[in-house]
Amino acid sequence: MDKAPSQRTRVKRLNKRAKYDAETVHAILDAMPVCFVGYVFKGTPYVTPTLQWREGDHIYWHGSSASRMLETCVDADVCVTVTMIDAMVMARSAFNHSCNYRSVMAMGKARIISDPVEKERRLKTFTEKLFPGRWDILRPVTSKELRATTMLGLSLVEASAKVRSGPPGDDEEDYALPIWAGLIPMRTQILAATADERNLPSLAPPDHVTNFKIG
Amino acid sequence: MDKAPSQRTRVKRLNKRAKYDAETVHAILDAMPVCFVGYVFKGTPYVTPTLQWREGDHIYWHGSSASRMLETCVDADVCVTVTMIDAMVMARSAFNHSCNYRSVMAMGKARIISDPVEKERRLKTFTEKLFPGRWDILRPVTSKELRATTMLGLSLVEASAKVRSGPPGDDEEDYALPIWAGLIPMRTQILAATADERNLPSLAPPDHVTNFKIG
Repeated sequence: MDKAPSQRTRVKRLNKRAKYDAETVHAILDAMPVCFVGYVFKGTPYVTPTLQWREGDHIYWHGSSASRMLETCVDADVCVTVTMIDAMVMARSAFNHSCNYRSVMAMGKARIISDPVEKERRLKTFTEKLFPGRWDILRPVTSKELRATTMLGLSLVEASAKVRSGPPGDDEEDYALPIWAGLIPMRTQILAATADERNLPSLAPPDHVTNFKIG
Repeated sequence: MDKAPSQRTRVKRLNKRAKYDAETVHAILDAMPVCFVGYVFKGTPYVTPTLQWREGDHIYWHGSSASRMLETCVDADVCVTVTMIDAMVMARSAFNHSCNYRSVMAMGKARIISDPVEKERRLKTFTEKLFPGRWDILRPVTSKELRATTMLGLSLVEASAKVRSGPPGDDEEDYALPIWAGLIPMRTQILAATADERNLPSLAPPDHVTNFKIG
């Protein structure tokens, strides 16, 4: 898809950076579970960080049933944004400094996942996407825990991506200046796992811990 | 300060994780320039990623004067959220999995910085905070560039922090289970800088490039 799916989803600024194809949108969402959920409560915008996961053409997020964010988002307009910063872009003028990034903005009405069977199935998918093989070794979810969990879903019909990559773009005359320009790349680094002090003796970290990666 | 500065700033969920002191709020904002600006446009919430910097008890962000986000935020209620994920918290049940994180949410009305002298001074502070010594080696900012830049500021009077750290918290009876629990720490990793192909010959990266860090 090379056109925005709706007027409010169309990238306004620097629209040469816009991408609307599902492949790009999905790849960004799959790489970075951390998302920022925007919603309106009593006329005021709020932005709450949480983790999202994608299943097909929807993303989901969840939390305590006591969460105001989750309660407020049900059947309400939300905006879920996921962003990875890939590099600082150092130019020869302050004005042309930038970041390389991959970002998705998904808009629409969040719907609640009320069916406990669907809720548990999607929690399993979430867990397995982050930590393959973990669901079946965990103490099983209880119905009380499912009731204490609110899960929301959002269609990706109105999702857009915005991506910047590549070198700085300086004013042509500035390239003659003796100013170091270039990229400072960055990424999410996963460090060595640390075992809980209360683990039973001789429990080794499973592959989904030692091989964990995001970003 | 151990009390929330306003009702809407009070952390509702897991308020044992809440911190309202300036030292904690400032440390998080200073560590992570990437922020997520929430605003309302035609009744719909939007969340736009950008970079913020702090000066005293305000944060600032900026961009193109053509930005709808910036235009919409002027004198409007906004919510600016900054979050670092420090670890995946692996528990013995799916329900008790969590993240360790440091997060700030700042709310209030954004104000525009119109004075070009103030604007340039704050751009310098932004640049110098990220890249000490860079401002003076750059090609100077032009008045046209300043006019093409919109800068917003937000008081931190209504800012709150929420922090989780430490090991997983499992249900007491689950500690007897042979399930690996612990932390998978993560951070923003800065990789080796890459020089622009159009740099003049024998330009070495300055210290603010080779020593750059965030997070």
